[in-house]
Amino acid sequence: MQTLGNYLKLTTFGESHGKAYGGILSNFPAGITLDLEKVQQALNRRRPGQSPIVTQRNESDTVELLSGIFEGKTTGMPIGFIIRNENQRSKDYTHLENALRPSHSDYTLEEKFGHRDYRGGGRSSARETSNWVVAGEICRQLLPSVSITAYVSGVGTITLDKEWQQLDFSLREENPVRCPDPEKAQEMEELIRKVRKEGDTVGGVVSCVVENVPKSLGEPVFQKLHAQLGHAMLSINAVKGFSYGSGFLSAQMRGSEHNDIFNEDFTTRTNHSGGIQGGISNGMPITFQVAFKPVATLLRPQQSYTISGTPTTLEGKGRHDPCVVPRAVPVVEALAAFVLADMYLINQGRKIEL
Amino acid sequence: MQTLGNYLKLTTFGESHGKAYGGILSNFPAGITLDLEKVQQALNRRRPGQSPIVTQRNESDTVELLSGIFEGKTTGMPIGFIIRNENQRSKDYTHLENALRPSHSDYTLEEKFGHRDYRGGGRSSARETSNWVVAGEICRQLLPSVSITAYVSGVGTITLDKEWQQLDFSLREENPVRCPDPEKAQEMEELIRKVRKEGDTVGGVVSCVVENVPKSLGEPVFQKLHAQLGHAMLSINAVKGFSYGSGFLSAQMRGSEHNDIFNEDFTTRTNHSGGIQGGISNGMPITFQVAFKPVATLLRPQQSYTISGTPTTLEGKGRHDPCVVPRAVPVVEALAAFVLADMYLINQGRKIEL
Amino acid sequence: MQTLGNYLKLTTFGESHGKAYGGILSNFPAGITLDLEKVQQALNRRRPGQSPIVTQRNESDTVELLSGIFEGKTTGMPIGFIIRNENQRSKDYTHLENALRPSHSDYTLEEKFGHRDYRGGGRSSARETSNWVVAGEICRQLLPSVSITAYVSGVGTITLDKEWQQLDFSLREENPVRCPDPEKAQEMEELIRKVRKEGDTVGGVVSCVVENVPKSLGEPVFQKLHAQLGHAMLSINAVKGFSYGSGFLSAQMRGSEHNDIFNEDFTTRTNHSGGIQGGISNGMPITFQVAFKPVATLLRPQQSYTISGTPTTLEGKGRHDPCVVPRAVPVVEALAAFVLADMYLINQGRKIEL
Amino acid sequence: MQTLGNYLKLTTFGESHGKAYGGILSNFPAGITLDLEKVQQALNRRRPGQSPIVTQRNESDTVELLSGIFEGKTTGMPIGFIIRNENQRSKDYTHLENALRPSHSDYTLEEKFGHRDYRGGGRSSARETSNWVVAGEICRQLLPSVSITAYVSGVGTITLDKEWQQLDFSLREENPVRCPDPEKAQEMEELIRKVRKEGDTVGGVVSCVVENVPKSLGEPVFQKLHAQLGHAMLSINAVKGFSYGSGFLSAQMRGSEHNDIFNEDFTTRTNHSGGIQGGISNGMPITFQVAFKPVATLLRPQQSYTISGTPTTLEGKGRHDPCVVPRAVPVVEALAAFVLADMYLINQGRKIEL
Repeated sequence: MQTLGNYLKLTTFGESHGKAYGGILSNFPAGITLDLEKVQQALNRRRPGQSPIVTQRNESDTVELLSGIFEGKTTGMPIGFIIRNENQRSKDYTHLENALRPSHSDYTLEEKFGHRDYRGGGRSSARETSNWVVAGEICRQLLPSVSITAYVSGVGTITLDKEWQQLDFSLREENPVRCPDPEKAQEMEELIRKVRKEGDTVGGVVSCVVENVPKSLGEPVFQKLHAQLGHAMLSINAVKGFSYGSGFLSAQMRGSEHNDIFNEDFTTRTNHSGGIQGGISNGMPITFQVAFKPVATLLRPQQSYTISGTPTTLEGKGRHDPCVVPRAVPVVEALAAFVLADMYLINQGRKIEL
Repeated sequence: MQTLGNYLKLTTFGESHGKAYGGILSNFPAGITLDLEKVQQALNRRRPGQSPIVTQRNESDTVELLSGIFEGKTTGMPIGFIIRNENQRSKDYTHLENALRPSHSDYTLEEKFGHRDYRGGGRSSARETSNWVVAGEICRQLLPSVSITAYVSGVGTITLDKEWQQLDFSLREENPVRCPDPEKAQEMEELIRKVRKEGDTVGGVVSCVVENVPKSLGEPVFQKLHAQLGHAMLSINAVKGFSYGSGFLSAQMRGSEHNDIFNEDFTTRTNHSGGIQGGISNGMPITFQVAFKPVATLLRPQQSYTISGTPTTLEGKGRHDPCVVPRAVPVVEALAAFVLADMYLINQGRKIEL
Repeated sequence: MQTLGNYLKLTTFGESHGKAYGGILSNFPAGITLDLEKVQQALNRRRPGQSPIVTQRNESDTVELLSGIFEGKTTGMPIGFIIRNENQRSKDYTHLENALRPSHSDYTLEEKFGHRDYRGGGRSSARETSNWVVAGEICRQLLPSVSITAYVSGVGTITLDKEWQQLDFSLREENPVRCPDPEKAQEMEELIRKVRKEGDTVGGVVSCVVENVPKSLGEPVFQKLHAQLGHAMLSINAVKGFSYGSGFLSAQMRGSEHNDIFNEDFTTRTNHSGGIQGGISNGMPITFQVAFKPVATLLRPQQSYTISGTPTTLEGKGRHDPCVVPRAVPVVEALAAFVLADMYLINQGRKIEL
Repeated sequence: MQTLGNYLKLTTFGESHGKAYGGILSNFPAGITLDLEKVQQALNRRRPGQSPIVTQRNESDTVELLSGIFEGKTTGMPIGFIIRNENQRSKDYTHLENALRPSHSDYTLEEKFGHRDYRGGGRSSARETSNWVVAGEICRQLLPSVSITAYVSGVGTITLDKEWQQLDFSLREENPVRCPDPEKAQEMEELIRKVRKEGDTVGGVVSCVVENVPKSLGEPVFQKLHAQLGHAMLSINAVKGFSYGSGFLSAQMRGSEHNDIFNEDFTTRTNHSGGIQGGISNGMPITFQVAFKPVATLLRPQQSYTISGTPTTLEGKGRHDPCVVPRAVPVVEALAAFVLADMYLINQGRKIEL
């Protein structure tokens, strides 16, 4: 049950301080020419150590593709891959063998499984998302005309108030925060630096826009496109909320202002629907928002208890992100690409050509 | 793929103006004594016509259980059930055969399937949620000590600012809005009446608290408890957002204020985690929020187009809810009960007794 | 987990003496015109009481289709249906409340579930296969050019030695045994009558030929077409074996005689492969064989024990088939049609049209 | 869809001449101490080159376990593993780029996927079964008291007529054929040597006995234990038939001789049921049979065609097995162990402890 997807399947494994991460992408169509360098480039965008405001853990995050590709093209067979762990400073974690970190999964994993790899959070580490970036980039190449852009729209109380249409996405990668508004990006970066200096962390929001979406993605009732996206995004470590289109704001609106009136070509004048109606894409841009809590590992003392109930003081010694949203951007894009590809392939199954 | 659940499965069918709704609940354990009257009572809470502020469609919503129960107890076999449609005034919809209603699924279903039952939204009607209430109430009886309470916490701009601990849930059913704060409930009801008079609709928020939750529900990575809840809630008609615990607010917080510090017994002093850490229940109350957009069917004229592109004016003639949240309360509870039961049974599978 | 299929899903319910059987066929494509009378006709072929050599239980087996069809065509939405039980002479079974019938599921269900509907075998009754016939006939109409013909090729030691190409399938329905060789059919019928007079039962074999099969059905490794067929056939009550093409005989052959040499058009000179190579249909006729044990309910005394361990003598009083294969023929065809349709739709999903 | 299992999941990848095979075993319970050497030993039993009568391809088949195990015990997290390919003499296959080998998957893969890794059969190679042996041996350690013994019971027309109770299983590994009857083993080995000398191949049968089986494994209707076993066995390369208990012979028997009469302790006097009644294990030994066709690759000329339709003569040059059944024995055991573990875990999910 550590599998994502309905028709297309991503099954993964890996622990923060184990030998390797890896995964199998099944049911990907045959005959697709893959640009494997782009897969590595996508991983590099998620990589630790890429800028001064992210964790300094030193991992090359090199993916090795093991199957399913022959002479540069997919064969329709499962695509297996691994990413070796390199810089496991497991000693940073020995003190955690017994102490339970607040707002981590330490306690719940201990209760549920009895036995766990406590080093660096084990299976709960966000390093798992590197598997998703590999799969997501491959999926992106299945839908080359679709444009998926995630960006940081909030860090702490600094929020980007502009509509996405007013933003210049080409500016996004020019700052380490991945916010396409240079001024806001500057403020956000400063906040992250300040917070880090204080040994603290801060939450944030990632927004995502998908342009040039095929119509008819998503299945009625229990496989609605936004519910699939929501499930995927809520699977990312530290995510606390998901909304699409008008989101939580819609709860305060009237139907007469919220309804998206059609143009003659069945585009809509407004897009409160966020590109999805009845769970199915209508061809308008898909928009959604993902809220991330502040990272739970602090570089300052926190009170806690050992498993046996002895009080203890805990202080993060590892190399951690003061704010996850800059590195979450490629993860959000990867999962969006995966979900869209999955829904695209399911939809193909419906087409009868007899 | 019109199935919900992982171990426990709910598969459903039905259209607004077809012969019947119904479903099959599979993998429910044997030997559970069911109170079948409670199942009907749960349905009655969702029923149209129950109060002046909901749709006046006249349906008794009587469930007939067809299998899987013998001498009052479950047998472990699939529980099949149907709910006959009675009051199908399909003529209300004949004008819709060609006109596409804004912010409905009319256009996307038409594009995706070519052929659709357009009467009353067909498969997209929220009448489908009556199936979920049947299954949810059965699941609730599997976990009798767990207490699931959903309530309306927002209608339009009127929002309930109190923490759930300050509310008296016993007051919830004493008003048609299902808000446990009598004063706010009064304001909300007045707003709904006003909006209806204007032929308009309004959105709202349903909050939910689950008390006395077993620990260890939820599976790492792709079956996190909150992602399962999110997926289920986002499947409800008109839902635009889902968050749990501190939700979108967490994005603005620091780790040092957000972290839930342990007490000696591993309860936590605060509960920003909303009872879920690393995707697994920690025994604290589970809290989540669901945002509903305003109903798209208005009893006032709207401009639109027929499928062939002719401009037309559309005016809802059916019997519709001006605000869905009061009737959504039992649906949210039903889905929560289903997800918890599903995760509970999956967790049982892990236990080895050799 | 009472669901059959991979892309196409059939989920069912029902007990022999419960209120009704029924099922939901999900993910069936939209826009297919269905001949609903043919669905009932298929059920009639499986119906009890249709000839003197089958059980005389009196059931009309009338199917009611409840959803997913609008104006005679499928809508892509789940097709729900029920078949009411009518002639439940549950009193025939009261003596079974405690006595465990040999070679039935009485003991294993009791051990596994603790609580069971013992009347007529409850969920284990072969009446469940009526659900499959409904779904199978609908699937058959999805693939109208494919011809699926099952027939009785063995009853006890009387076996049909002719190759299927030598048989005139039009003669199959002219005898109650459903064997297309009139002489053998006569012998088989006499054997069944004799066995019934003795209060005994007898086993048999159903063979099946699928002509005009689309190529490329079946997926490598764990969804091979023959493994899907095998799984489905082994799900039929009383089935003890499944083989395809050269079957168990192949174990005695040399590669040089067994290999199917290609013709220029990639048909093959022989068809030991039974139309399936590497788990994928190659366009040649698919052939397979299904072995059925003798019915376990005898109309003569058998020694057994009650659940509490008291010795008892048991004698079937219900209305039972002395040999199941004649009525199994439409069931084998139905499941074959379902599996082929499922594999057909999965294969469609692979096709990229960007 | 390259996944086996229902609760427990095995997802795999790999091609004969790709970089590596590998897999992910998900949902395996936590806290199980694994003997990792036994996993390698199981692989060694399947390894090429182990005796003079099997293929001489030189592969060490060394498994590397990458995750899910910590301090010698499982963590409940996915167990990822890889087996690197070493001795890929891909040049043996260059002549196959265009020629289609009879009774292989060359033609069907070509038709289905358009693009394929033709080297050594690519994904269709039986090397995939090494993945299954890894997973199966881990599963075997979950059910340590269960004893699974497969053995060769037929090679060509030489068949073992003894009941399994008359055999001394300790003699099985003392001959390269893996037949526990030394005399028959001798005959079989001679036949295989003779056939190989002739550049030909021969089929065979593997029988399997599972002793000390827990009761209650298997789920009614579509997850019957024998149907799960049948599906798994039919997934093995070259398998043409599966039967359990009395198998195809049952078709010729009367109910009065076939029924398994109970003893007072609910064991049965006979075991025609093969340990499974109504799809659920009854605690008696499980017995089943698997028929393998002769290997399709011959070391003698065969006529065929290139993809473009040009006649050509084909002659196997690779290193191939003249008869697969000796090396299939550990594969049959591995899949049986997997299926039993899967059904065991599903059954656990049903148990309520509230």
